[in-house]
Formats: sequence, structure tokens, C-alpha cells
Amino acid sequence: MLEELKEEVVQANLELTKQGLVKYTWGNASAIDRESGLFVIKPSGVDYETMKASDMVVVDLKGNVVEGDLNPSSDTPTHAVLYEHYPEIGGIAHTHSTWATIWAQAGLDVPAMGTTHADTFYGPVPCARFLTQEEIDRGYEAETGKVIIETFEERGLDVLAVPGVLLHGHAPFTWGKDVKSAVMNSVVLEEISKMNLFARELNHFAQELPQRILDKHYLRKHGENAYYGQK
Amino acid sequence: MLEELKEEVVQANLELTKQGLVKYTWGNASAIDRESGLFVIKPSGVDYETMKASDMVVVDLKGNVVEGDLNPSSDTPTHAVLYEHYPEIGGIAHTHSTWATIWAQAGLDVPAMGTTHADTFYGPVPCARFLTQEEIDRGYEAETGKVIIETFEERGLDVLAVPGVLLHGHAPFTWGKDVKSAVMNSVVLEEISKMNLFARELNHFAQELPQRILDKHYLRKHGENAYYGQK
Amino acid sequence: MLEELKEEVVQANLELTKQGLVKYTWGNASAIDRESGLFVIKPSGVDYETMKASDMVVVDLKGNVVEGDLNPSSDTPTHAVLYEHYPEIGGIAHTHSTWATIWAQAGLDVPAMGTTHADTFYGPVPCARFLTQEEIDRGYEAETGKVIIETFEERGLDVLAVPGVLLHGHAPFTWGKDVKSAVMNSVVLEEISKMNLFARELNHFAQELPQRILDKHYLRKHGENAYYGQK
Amino acid sequence: MLEELKEEVVQANLELTKQGLVKYTWGNASAIDRESGLFVIKPSGVDYETMKASDMVVVDLKGNVVEGDLNPSSDTPTHAVLYEHYPEIGGIAHTHSTWATIWAQAGLDVPAMGTTHADTFYGPVPCARFLTQEEIDRGYEAETGKVIIETFEERGLDVLAVPGVLLHGHAPFTWGKDVKSAVMNSVVLEEISKMNLFARELNHFAQELPQRILDKHYLRKHGENAYYGQK
Repeated sequence: MLEELKEEVVQANLELTKQGLVKYTWGNASAIDRESGLFVIKPSGVDYETMKASDMVVVDLKGNVVEGDLNPSSDTPTHAVLYEHYPEIGGIAHTHSTWATIWAQAGLDVPAMGTTHADTFYGPVPCARFLTQEEIDRGYEAETGKVIIETFEERGLDVLAVPGVLLHGHAPFTWGKDVKSAVMNSVVLEEISKMNLFARELNHFAQELPQRILDKHYLRKHGENAYYGQK
Repeated sequence: MLEELKEEVVQANLELTKQGLVKYTWGNASAIDRESGLFVIKPSGVDYETMKASDMVVVDLKGNVVEGDLNPSSDTPTHAVLYEHYPEIGGIAHTHSTWATIWAQAGLDVPAMGTTHADTFYGPVPCARFLTQEEIDRGYEAETGKVIIETFEERGLDVLAVPGVLLHGHAPFTWGKDVKSAVMNSVVLEEISKMNLFARELNHFAQELPQRILDKHYLRKHGENAYYGQK
Repeated sequence: MLEELKEEVVQANLELTKQGLVKYTWGNASAIDRESGLFVIKPSGVDYETMKASDMVVVDLKGNVVEGDLNPSSDTPTHAVLYEHYPEIGGIAHTHSTWATIWAQAGLDVPAMGTTHADTFYGPVPCARFLTQEEIDRGYEAETGKVIIETFEERGLDVLAVPGVLLHGHAPFTWGKDVKSAVMNSVVLEEISKMNLFARELNHFAQELPQRILDKHYLRKHGENAYYGQK
Repeated sequence: MLEELKEEVVQANLELTKQGLVKYTWGNASAIDRESGLFVIKPSGVDYETMKASDMVVVDLKGNVVEGDLNPSSDTPTHAVLYEHYPEIGGIAHTHSTWATIWAQAGLDVPAMGTTHADTFYGPVPCARFLTQEEIDRGYEAETGKVIIETFEERGLDVLAVPGVLLHGHAPFTWGKDVKSAVMNSVVLEEISKMNLFARELNHFAQELPQRILDKHYLRKHGENAYYGQK
């Protein structure tokens, strides 16, 4: 079942490695089929070099395995919670990519300092809080999803306009309309995390991108009047 | 038309990727044929892996497409404005390369700290100001070109002696007598941006290169009495 | 003798190079056969490009060569002391990998700042003290092993829960149940050394990972109730 | 003439590129035949991808071309001055490698902070002063060699024990008993330049390697009682 989606998901996982965002088995990408309400995710702890489409696991929105011989990624409940809450999301990626993880470990939002940021993220990428002991006991991975939702709701953020988050002390999650764009958003987040760190180091008084430039760049690529690329 | 120039332009765009200056479609290079007053530029948002010479777009100095099935780069008006104002320029490159973009985001000129800089740039690489709301409304990309010209005129700079600029909050543009040297200047700017950042971090009191060494290095490679390379 | 182990050891040494942890001959990995009490180690100063299983040297726990035409790694006595003292260790790796060496040169423990750290190291990675003149005179390499043991004993650390150490002014050693995991622990230590340095640079007040998150991540991968990966 | 040496020199130049120390034509390596008093050096500004042994230029100690169709490296007089003054040197390499150049631009000696440094350089790598206007006028490249000699003499340094130097605002030169070790010393200098910069950034109070460890590491690889590698 969902053979095409499995192929997309395995390609997305391999792309994470190819882009240098994932070492060993430290990452996972998934995609959902909204019609059936099932999503396809990478198995847990399996070598990227031998991973193939048929190793992908099919899971329902409660996190139950529907098809597959291998255990799904240990982060599966996080994916399930996000897919259930945000019907506009089609794919999710999780990595421990170096520079985004550095911001997560610093416990700071990634501010919008340049147009490379604004082309993809319409404002700062938020850093979500540490989980409490109670949340960890209740179920670490599902509660991680809930803390992401809490962060976006408290700040009133549109989940597709800001398609990523940092988890304090952990690492980033990104998403998109499909798994390919979720992976691309991981690549962008990694690059802007590096750029913005050193921009601040170089000039401690460097300002965030003025709102007018943020608007211009985000909106020339996204929204009704976008004119970037081929139509 | 302009088949040879199209080949040069596609090679220059691929070189930007090969040199690690461009991720995805975040860059563009162009070259002008001064006889016809037409220039050749990369199409917008097209994958580098499949891009070929026949995908290149031919544009006039008003930015109108003269030949080509694809939309030209969204930055085409910036190229057009620069080609029109500076007849000595034969090629232009634009990237979001990491270290040059960091200086752009910091809003600082790249000072001439070493001979690697002096071999190519005869003095600091200027950082141009943010555009105003009025300029954005009038036409973001063309006005970007005008702000570059404003920066060079205010400082009395020779556009071939300092063949590049940073745009505050955005990224670099470089140019040269042809598109190959424009790309090479992007590579140099990226490298010196990295070196100069860390030289200042290592020694906050590090001085700029003395004028006499700047002169020596620039002039042994450029100008009448140059003696570097093969003649 | 120990042909399989030699193959494992040569592969582990090559993996150190492939992962970018070793330049030239600056590293070594070994594995022990507990039944015979003999270990297999890389020869000293031999080129990785031509190194093969039959070049590996078999050594006893006193550091005497039992089989092999080449001199064993000059660090062999360090390996011998560790294998003798810690029967739970099956493999050891030593590199001068850039970021871990930077912490060693700074003379600082690598604090547990994130879950990438917690997935492998159950707490800070300690930095052992410089050797004294007396220790150097007595035998630099064997005494290095003893200083590692001293460090772990003074702090009451479990050698498999914290499978690595920094030597002040020198570089890291890592270990594991076998040589493959020793190498993997070197890769993790390198990555967290980089992340943790820049997390602290980005936010000088960044806190260490709360104990509850450290516990959760370490224990979901290790110990009785681990649920990461395939069983 | 000197066909074998030409082959060594072309390989050394290619190794500089392969090791990531040289972009475009920004580097040069040479080797001397002490019997004839002639040395072989890379031509100036020639592409590394097409460079072959027969392109190498043979030069005498006054810097006069003895054989070769191409202009020798513009830095040839620096090599000549060093070969003439130091009969123990067999090969020289010059690069603008990123991290060593950063120290040169910062105008600082690279302190001995770790054993990676001590394995190759027996003490700090000195940074030589800027040339004066008079020196530049007299002959920039030959005077560069003289300033290197001045630096070593003022500090009483053994040129083979400290086989490299930084030129303030410029970049490193390294040397060795042959051109292969000159290149290797460039690689080591680049690596320790990176490590030492970040060790100091991580811990501003990080101390230099104690003399006893510096002695131990340098002397276990060099000198009469060396025991590293295969004999």
C-alpha cells in the first residue's frame, strides 16, 4: 500500500543524508496520505545505505503500525500529533543538523536576519520549551508534538508560513505541503542558522531584517502575487 | 541567438554550484553581448542538475525577454540596470554564499585585511543600504541595481577595481569583464569574507592591510605593469 | 591469528579517515579478543591508503608484540592499560579530530548541552589533566592510560555510560563494547564538541540539558527499557 | 632536466589542491636539487587541472629561468632567497589556506596549544612583520624571503624544527627536507591554526602546552631517540 508515497519518503530520507543534515540514523522524514489518514515513516535505527522503499512503515494517526516489518522511528508519535492537528501539513522532517541544533541548544529563536530566511520562513523560527517531568512520563514523543503546537498557538503563528521549530536542548523539526518541501525547509533552516549565528558574532548590534524587506521576499515567492520561478 | 554566450552563462551558473556558493536555485549569473545590447541570464527557479544552454533567456536592457520559453531570473532587472550603467561590465553573478551573506546581514563593508583580498578587490567591498518602502514599491529588483550604483558613486569607486558589493540583509553581487571572472570574484569574496571575519574575531585590534601592500598586490596582478601569470 | 578481528580493526581505522576524523596517520583503533587476552592494533605511521588487515599488529596486555612485522601504534601502551583495567571495553579509538581536540586544548569537559550528546554520553565528557614530568619519564603512553583511569575513578564514572575522554592539550580517546562502537563514539564526540562550542558562543548563558531530558534520551537508547532501533 | 624532481613538484602542487589548501592558482610548491643548485617551481597562474610535469620551470638561485617555456611563480624570488640561505631545506610550499591566513591577517604567532602542533612544530609558528615601502620598492618577493630570515634569526629559531612562518597580512610559507614534507607541514599548519583559534575562543585563558609535553611529542617523532612510525 501507498507505494508511491513510500518511494517519496525513502528519497526524502536519503536527501537528508546527501545534504549533510543527518549522520548515522539521526533523522527521519515522513509523508501523509490524507485520503486514508495514514502516514509513511522511516524505520527506527536502520542504516541509510541499505534502506529501501519497502522498509518504510505505514502508521495511523494514533501511531499504530498498519503495515511494515520494522519498528517505525521512535519519533513517530511526534509526527502523528502534528499531522492530526495540522491538516495543511503533508510531510515532516526531523534532523540533528549541526547549526540548527546549536540554536536549539542555545534555547533561542532564530531571528530573521536576511532574505535567505525571508524567502522560506515568514518571521523568526521559534524555539519551544523543555518538556516537564510530567510530560516526559506521559509520553515523551507525543508530548513533544504538543509542545510544538503550544508554541505556535501562543505566538499565533501560521504553520505553513513558519514551517519549522526548534526544540530546546534537542533539535529542529520542519514540515511542508509535502515531504520534499519539508526536507528543503530543513536545508534552509540549517543554512540560516549558520548565517545568523555568525552575523550576530560579527556585529553584535546587527539588526533583524526590516519588516518591509521580509514581506517583499516572502511574498515574491509565496502567496497570490508571487512571481518567482516558473508557473 | 547568442549560442556561445548561452554556453558560457550555463557553465558559469554550474560553476557557482560546484564551488559551493549556491544551494538549490539561490543564485544567478548572466553575460552581455555589447554589440546587440542583449544579455543572457539563467531562468528563474530552475533545477541546476537539468539546466542546459537552451534554457537560458535572452533579455534586453529594459529587462524585456527577447528569446526563451522560461521566465528569466527574478533578479533580471538588477542585472539590466547594472549593465546599462556600467558599459565596462561583461558578466554578473549573484549568490547567497554563506560568508559573504553573513557580512551582508551584519550590514558591514568587508575591510581589506589581507593580500588574498588585495589580489582581486582594490579596497573594502562596500555594503549598500536597505531599500526604502518607496523603492520597494517602485520595483524592488531594479531599485536594488540603483542602490548599488548610488553606493559606488557616493564612494567614488571604480566598478572594475572593486568588482562586488553586499546588499544589507540580502547577499552579494559580483561582476567582471566577463561572466567567468564575475564567478571567480564571487569565490574570492566568499573566501575573504570568511577569513576577515575570523581574523577580527581572533584579534579585535587586527589592522587593515597597509596601503602600500594593497597597492603592491593589486597592481602586480592588474594594470599596466602587472607581472603575475602568463602573458 | 585473529583474522576476523584484524579485518574489523582495519575497517574501523579506515572509517576514522572516511568520517574526516583522521588526517595522515594521526589516529588509531584497536579491538581485543578477551578469550586470548590479545588485542589487534594499527601499525605506527602507516599510510591509510595502502593499509590492509595483514598489516595489523597483535599485542598482549603488557604491550608486547605477539604477531606482526610492523611496529604497533606508538599509543599501544595506552590501549593496553585501558583494556587491562576495564574488562567491559572491547574496542578503543584515538584521533586528533578537530572539535574534540579543541576542547582538549581548552582544557575543559564537554558539557551535556543537548540530546545528541545524551543519546551516547550519559553526562559530561571529562577532560583529564596534563601528565607530570615524572609520569612522562616513567612512560608517557602507559601513564596516559593511568590518568584516564584516575579521572574516571575520581568522578565515579561508568566507563561504558561515558565512553570517551579528552586529554588536556592532546586529543580524545573513545571506546565501546567493540571497535565499531568505539569509532561511532568518536564521531559523536566530534559532532557534540562542535555543537556545544557554538551553542555556548551563541548564548553564554545557555544551560546544560536538564537531568530529566538527559535520562530520557540516554535510557530510550540504552539499558533495559530501551525502545530505539530494531530488536 | 631534473625530470624526477619535476614530477615530485607537480604532485606536491596537486596535493595542495586536493587537501583544500589552494583555490584557483593561489599557491606554489618547489623543490631543489642541491647538487646542481637549481630548483623546480610551478609556473605562474596556470590551471591546476591541466598542469603537468613538463610545465614546471627550472630556476637558479638568483631566480633566473634555466629551463621552461612558462613564467615561473611570481613568488620565485622568495623561494630562491630561502634556498640560498638555508641549505637544509629541500622543498617549499606557499598557500593562502584559510585558517593559517586568518592568523597571518590577525598578525599573531600561532602558539603551541596542543600535541598536534608539537608533533610537527617545536614551538610557536612566528608571524613576520609587514614589509616597508623601501623593501617593496627594492623587490617585494625577494625581500619577503629576507624578512622571513630576519624573523628566524631574531628569535634564534631552527628552520627545520619550526618549518613554517606567517607573513603579516599575507599567508603562510612552509618548508621541509623535501617538497612532500613541505606540503605536509602546510596541512598541519592549517589544521592547528583552526584548532588553536577555537581553543582560545572557547577558553580565553587556555594555556599553551607545557614545555615537558611539547618536548615529549616533538622528540618522540623527531631526533635521535624518535620511536614513532616504522624504521
